[in-house]
Amino acid sequence: MREFQEMMKNLYLKRDLERGVSGTFNWLVAEVAELGEELKGSNREATEKEFADVIAWLTSLANIRGIDLEKAALNKYNYKCPKCQSSPCACTF
Amino acid sequence: MREFQEMMKNLYLKRDLERGVSGTFNWLVAEVAELGEELKGSNREATEKEFADVIAWLTSLANIRGIDLEKAALNKYNYKCPKCQSSPCACTF
Repeated sequence: MREFQEMMKNLYLKRDLERGVSGTFNWLVAEVAELGEELKGSNREATEKEFADVIAWLTSLANIRGIDLEKAALNKYNYKCPKCQSSPCACTF
Repeated sequence: MREFQEMMKNLYLKRDLERGVSGTFNWLVAEVAELGEELKGSNREATEKEFADVIAWLTSLANIRGIDLEKAALNKYNYKCPKCQSSPCACTF
């Protein structure tokens, strides 16, 4: 995840900073909507591309804010459920 | 990214499969909205947690469909921009 984030910085950080948080968030929302449409069908390759786009825009957004996605993810989900503290999750809800 | 996805499988796959694509996608959309709200403020720790939640739900969704997120991301964004084929991106739009 960290390597992907570094690559995205090299590719797009200048452009991402120019676009800013608000504009980049709007792209993320649009890509999530596209993923939702693709998930209704069964085109695996197209679905994979939409997953890639969502990750890419989420990473761009994190880069603008200087947030390390891998660290953020592992701080919250570190081999146990953040709610019930079990693995696998044993939440009852 | 692959390691995080494996961990999420161990934690949540059974639950994710029971919930299904549609219900899990709805959670993803809700978490993206929460991230958007948090990005309006300046609470770094809270923002990191929202990024973590979005990644977690996106990963759950990929797990339901059996999609390898790292492979999907690198297939599309492999050290060059998928549109202009340059690094850094030199698209003019």
